Amino acid sequence: MSMVTLSRRSHRIQPFHVMALLARARELEAAGQDIVHMEIGEPDFPTAAPVTEAGRAALAAGETGYLPAGGLPELREAIARHYADHYQAPVDPQRIVITPGASGALVVALAMLADPGQNVLLPDPGYPCNRNFVELVDARPRAVRVTADTDYQLTAGLARAAADPRTAAIMVGSPGNPTGTLAGAADLAGLAAFAEERGVGLIVDEIYHGLHYGDPPAQGVVHAPGSIIINSFSKYFGMTGWRLGWMVMPAEWVPVAEKLMQNLFISASTPAQHAALACFGDEARAIFESRRAAFRQRRDFLLPALRELGFHIPGHPDGAFYLYADVSGLTDDSAELAEALLDRAGVAATPGLDFEQTAPERHMRFAYTTAMERLEAGVERIAQLLRAGG
Amino acid sequence: MSMVTLSRRSHRIQPFHVMALLARARELEAAGQDIVHMEIGEPDFPTAAPVTEAGRAALAAGETGYLPAGGLPELREAIARHYADHYQAPVDPQRIVITPGASGALVVALAMLADPGQNVLLPDPGYPCNRNFVELVDARPRAVRVTADTDYQLTAGLARAAADPRTAAIMVGSPGNPTGTLAGAADLAGLAAFAEERGVGLIVDEIYHGLHYGDPPAQGVVHAPGSIIINSFSKYFGMTGWRLGWMVMPAEWVPVAEKLMQNLFISASTPAQHAALACFGDEARAIFESRRAAFRQRRDFLLPALRELGFHIPGHPDGAFYLYADVSGLTDDSAELAEALLDRAGVAATPGLDFEQTAPERHMRFAYTTAMERLEAGVERIAQLLRAGG
Repeated sequence: MSMVTLSRRSHRIQPFHVMALLARARELEAAGQDIVHMEIGEPDFPTAAPVTEAGRAALAAGETGYLPAGGLPELREAIARHYADHYQAPVDPQRIVITPGASGALVVALAMLADPGQNVLLPDPGYPCNRNFVELVDARPRAVRVTADTDYQLTAGLARAAADPRTAAIMVGSPGNPTGTLAGAADLAGLAAFAEERGVGLIVDEIYHGLHYGDPPAQGVVHAPGSIIINSFSKYFGMTGWRLGWMVMPAEWVPVAEKLMQNLFISASTPAQHAALACFGDEARAIFESRRAAFRQRRDFLLPALRELGFHIPGHPDGAFYLYADVSGLTDDSAELAEALLDRAGVAATPGLDFEQTAPERHMRFAYTTAMERLEAGVERIAQLLRAGG
Repeated sequence: MSMVTLSRRSHRIQPFHVMALLARARELEAAGQDIVHMEIGEPDFPTAAPVTEAGRAALAAGETGYLPAGGLPELREAIARHYADHYQAPVDPQRIVITPGASGALVVALAMLADPGQNVLLPDPGYPCNRNFVELVDARPRAVRVTADTDYQLTAGLARAAADPRTAAIMVGSPGNPTGTLAGAADLAGLAAFAEERGVGLIVDEIYHGLHYGDPPAQGVVHAPGSIIINSFSKYFGMTGWRLGWMVMPAEWVPVAEKLMQNLFISASTPAQHAALACFGDEARAIFESRRAAFRQRRDFLLPALRELGFHIPGHPDGAFYLYADVSGLTDDSAELAEALLDRAGVAATPGLDFEQTAPERHMRFAYTTAMERLEAGVERIAQLLRAGG
C-alpha cells in the first residue's frame, strides 16, 4: 500500500454513477439478456465512409508526424468556411485552435480562465465532466439551478444572481446535455453582455451543434463573439473515437491557447485532422444530414411516447440526442426506477445522479442513440413494467 | 479588446524560445537556403508500415467509437507482455492505463499527485513542458540543478537537499531530454526509496525507452515499482502524430487515473490504440531495431565530431537522440551562437534557454533526428563557421 498522499483534487473528482449501471447492463447481456441501450451518449453510427477513407489515405501518405500546436492550417480554414457556409457567420481561421476532442479544449479553456479559489458558474442539470475540468485547475464549480422556465439554459438573470467577485467564468452548453434544449439568440447575447460587463470568461459548449430538429440554434460566434466556443467532431460529424475538437476565441487569446496546447498536448491527432477535412465535403454532409433526420425521427417518436407513459418532459428538447424526464409522477427514487428498468425490463437509462445536485432522485435521462425499432421495443418494455406496478 | 482577465497560470506558462528560431529557419528555407535540422525532437522516420497498415485496417473495420477510459484491454495486455518479453519485468495489465500521448499521462499524473501551493522537484536542465504540467495544477516547479557528476540525473541526495514538507512529487526522465543520459539502477532505486520514505510521488518519464545505445536503462517497473511510470508510442515506436502513450502505476491508483481519464479525455484515440497493437509484432520490432541502429550510428558520429570542434559534452549521452553541449569554450552566449549557426551556416540547433535556468547561455542541444549525410554536412558547416571566427 502506497504511503503517498494523492491530491485533494483526486478525491473531489467523482466517478460517474452510471458506470455501475453500465457494468450491470454488460453482466446481464453476458448472461444472455437483451438490453435496449438508452443510456449511451455516443451516436450509434460509425464514422462516415468518406471520413474513414480520408483517414486511411492520410495514413497511406505517411501523415503521421506532429502538426503545429494550433492545428493543420487547411483544417482551420475548412472550419472557418463551415461557419460561413452553414451559419452565415464569417470566422477568421486564425481564431480557431484544433484540440484533442472537446475534452482537450475544455482543459485549455479552463486553464486560460480560472485560478484556484475562483468559481465557475455551470447550469444544474448539466454535463457531469464540466465541473471536473473546473476542479482540475482548482477553481470551484458553482451549480446554478436551471429549470424548464428558461428551457434549462443559464441566462444573464440567473448568472447575475449567482456570480460574485470571485467568479472567473461561466460555462453553458447549447444544445445541452442532459436536456437537449437550446439557448435562444437573445438569451445567449444577454449572457455574453453580462460576462463582458463583469469581465468574466464565457465558455459556450456547442459540441451538439448540427444536431437540431427545429430552428437552428443560436451561434456563439454571432451572439457571443468574445466567448470561448467549444466544438467537436464527435457528435454531428460522427468521429467520437478519433478525439478531435476545436475552439473559437478572440484573436488576442490564440497565442495563449497555442502555448497551452503546445505544452500540454503538443498537437491534436494528425491522422484525425487529415480525416476531418473530409467532413466538409458534399458526400459526408449528405450522410450527416441523413443521420440528423434519423435522430429527429427518433426524437419525434420517443418524446410523445415517454410523455404518454407519465414521464414529464417540459420545455423543448430540440437538439442533441437526449430527453431529460421528471419521473416524480412515477417514483420517488429515479435510481431505483433505473435499476428496475434494467433488471426487470431490459432497458438501460441513466438516473439523474450524474447530472444534477438539486433533485437527482426525480430525474432520468433517455438517450436516443439506438435504432427506431429498439426504441419502440424499449418503450413497450417500459410500459409493461409500469403497468405491472413499477 | 477583451476585458476578461486571463488566469495567472496563463502568464506563468511560457512559450518555447525555440519557436522564434524555428520560424526563422522556415523563412530561410522558404527563401531557398538549405538548412540542416538538428533542433527537432521528433524521429525523422515515419510510422512503420505494419503499424500504419494496422491503423488502416482498424478504420476499414469501423473501429471509430469510444474505448474504455483505461484503454483497449488487448493493448494493455500487449504492453504488459512487452515488459515481460524485453525487460524481464512482469507487469499486471491492470496497472497500465492508456493515455493521449505521454502529454495526457502527465496531465493525469500531476492532477493525481500535486495540490496548489505544493512543489514538484524537476531536474535542471530538463524537458521544458514538464514544469508547465506542474503549473497547470498550480503547484510550483522546483528546479534541482543536475550536472555531469550524476550524468544529469536527479538522485536521492539531490532530492533530499531540495525537498521540503510541501514537496508533493519528484519528476525524472531516463533517458533524459535534453541530455540523452540514463539513470542507473542503484540511483533510481535510491530515489524511489527516498520518495517512499517521504511519502511523495515519483514520476519516472521513460518515453525514450528503447532508444539506448549502450546497456539497457534501469526500469521504473523494477527499480521504482511504487512510482508512476510514463511511456509513449511516439519515440521508439515512431507514432508521434497519433498521440498515444501509457502509464504504469500501483494497482490501487488505477481507479483514480481511470476516473481522471474518463472526465478529462473520455479515452485515448481508438484508431491509434488499434494501430499500436502492431508495434509488438516481429516485423515492426525489426524496423524499430534498425532505426535504433541508425540513431546509434549517428550518435557515434556526432558525439566525437562535436567534441572535436570544442563542444564540451560530458557524461554518457547513451539514449534518446540528443546531445547537450557546454559551449562556453566557444562563446559566452549560446543564443547568439545558435543564431549565427542558423543564419551564417544553415544549421538549426537549440540554445539552452528552453532547457535550463542555471546557465542557459552556456549550453546548446543538438538532436540527431536527421540522416547521417545531413549530420556530416552540418558538422562541416559548423567547423567552417568556427574556423571563420564564430
